[in-house]
Amino acid sequence: MSVLVVGTVAFDAIETPFGKTDKIVGGAATYICLASSFFTKELKLVSVVGEDFPKDAVKMLKNKSVDTTGLQIKKGEKTFFWSGKYHNNMNTRDTLETQLNVLEGFNPIVPDKFKESEFLMLGNLMPSVQKKVLAQMSKRPKLVVLDTMNFWMDHYMQDLLPALKNVDVLTINDEEARQLSEEYSLTKAAKKILKMGPRYLIIKKGEHGALLFNEKEIFFAPALPLDEVFDPTGAGDSFAGGFTGYLARTKNLSFNNMKRAVVYGSVLASFCVEKFGTEQLQSITKEQINCRLQNFVDLVKFDVEPI
Amino acid sequence: MSVLVVGTVAFDAIETPFGKTDKIVGGAATYICLASSFFTKELKLVSVVGEDFPKDAVKMLKNKSVDTTGLQIKKGEKTFFWSGKYHNNMNTRDTLETQLNVLEGFNPIVPDKFKESEFLMLGNLMPSVQKKVLAQMSKRPKLVVLDTMNFWMDHYMQDLLPALKNVDVLTINDEEARQLSEEYSLTKAAKKILKMGPRYLIIKKGEHGALLFNEKEIFFAPALPLDEVFDPTGAGDSFAGGFTGYLARTKNLSFNNMKRAVVYGSVLASFCVEKFGTEQLQSITKEQINCRLQNFVDLVKFDVEPI
Repeated sequence: MSVLVVGTVAFDAIETPFGKTDKIVGGAATYICLASSFFTKELKLVSVVGEDFPKDAVKMLKNKSVDTTGLQIKKGEKTFFWSGKYHNNMNTRDTLETQLNVLEGFNPIVPDKFKESEFLMLGNLMPSVQKKVLAQMSKRPKLVVLDTMNFWMDHYMQDLLPALKNVDVLTINDEEARQLSEEYSLTKAAKKILKMGPRYLIIKKGEHGALLFNEKEIFFAPALPLDEVFDPTGAGDSFAGGFTGYLARTKNLSFNNMKRAVVYGSVLASFCVEKFGTEQLQSITKEQINCRLQNFVDLVKFDVEPI
Repeated sequence: MSVLVVGTVAFDAIETPFGKTDKIVGGAATYICLASSFFTKELKLVSVVGEDFPKDAVKMLKNKSVDTTGLQIKKGEKTFFWSGKYHNNMNTRDTLETQLNVLEGFNPIVPDKFKESEFLMLGNLMPSVQKKVLAQMSKRPKLVVLDTMNFWMDHYMQDLLPALKNVDVLTINDEEARQLSEEYSLTKAAKKILKMGPRYLIIKKGEHGALLFNEKEIFFAPALPLDEVFDPTGAGDSFAGGFTGYLARTKNLSFNNMKRAVVYGSVLASFCVEKFGTEQLQSITKEQINCRLQNFVDLVKFDVEPI
């Protein structure tokens, strides 16, 4: 199935306890597309960059079968830039600098040939921009996945809440789920959030795994304990990309298949964090993905009899 | 198999966001015995209390098939008392008061009929006391499980390190594993700790589950997402009790069976936190345990094909 991916394509400068980068190519949509590209060849991108964005990076996406027709390149303007520094525990970070640049006033235009995409993956962006994309689709996609973050809950809740009504799967982290629901227990939070619109909720807990909820069921996928977490940037987007890509490949939206998609999302996220930026997502192979999938299977496998 | 349990039997006063208790019966050995009692009827206790300790509480333990011959009752002295207040997130707490009382200068005496116990569960206590118990056994038990905490790492590392050399299974939490190994990554921490003596390491992550390591393998058991976490006191001890009790029942020390034991430990911990103190462990039934076991099975069950 075809997947339309909307989100930032950006420059990041990242500092972790293990080193720092100059400006490197990042952005939610970049990670999502790269992670999805292992599962489907029908990827379409809507985003915006400035004239300073390297042609090689666009070519790299095209080589991964991403249709970049919807990538606006703004002459004389600069690409969105984010710079951040991770603390020693790698779970928290400080934003050092944000330059919105082309993102300020971004008006997403969905090319006609993208308007019938079957899946829509709305990466973390201003909720009003996410809404504009959905409004341009010629028919309601079979699946709408939306990622968002605490910033939009802090300042744009009035836009976010209506957006949630049109969503099939919402992906947020545990703190965001607590903020959105005003419940500390994640099971209680999930019940409240599922009443806000999404049919499925994924709560990402970083190194502690991810929970998938629908109204009646719950599934937990662990994160793989790793020797080195080098750079967590993009882990959530890689997760979303692996998740959506797997669903597009398998064309099955049952809860059981969503569970598999969550595991594949976790596999892609586990690769993402092992190197700086998108480096690892650009270089891994299907064989490596399948091998790591088996690590996940083995990690939680047990058989047990009642007492 | 027979299990000798050593640890505190105490009074606790607990305050959580959901309420507070007066002095209630607690202590590591109490939780361990109660959790183990669902799996084995050959439980032996070595501990110490003061004259103020209620006879009913001793009777309650006896009714759970715990042999209390090794429970010293010190005339004219008072039972160990701990009081603590949990923060809103329930993951952190402040100790409000600690009265060592009978625990000060506690000299554990293992009754002769306990000295051939096949399993030894050393609950969290001063490492030198744990060592004294092991030294009194007539032969090396088939399994020695040791629980400890950051306090002993801060002040008694010189006693703790030699104690670890005689241990089969060490149970600590994630922060303690990091402190003991001086490694942030839990997989790296596990490799270092397994070189200190234990053949198996369990890292407890509270609401994020538990990891089991041996030299070559790793297993992850989730915690069950709960609507209400009422009082986390004793969760780690209930885990250790369920774990050790299950191994004693099944008489099988393979890694595969340890995995099952970790899941049963998690089941018992999930019950413990739903009510104040030991209330829930005193009232649950085998049927409830089996039902919850199935919740754990369902929570992580998935089947997936490679791509």
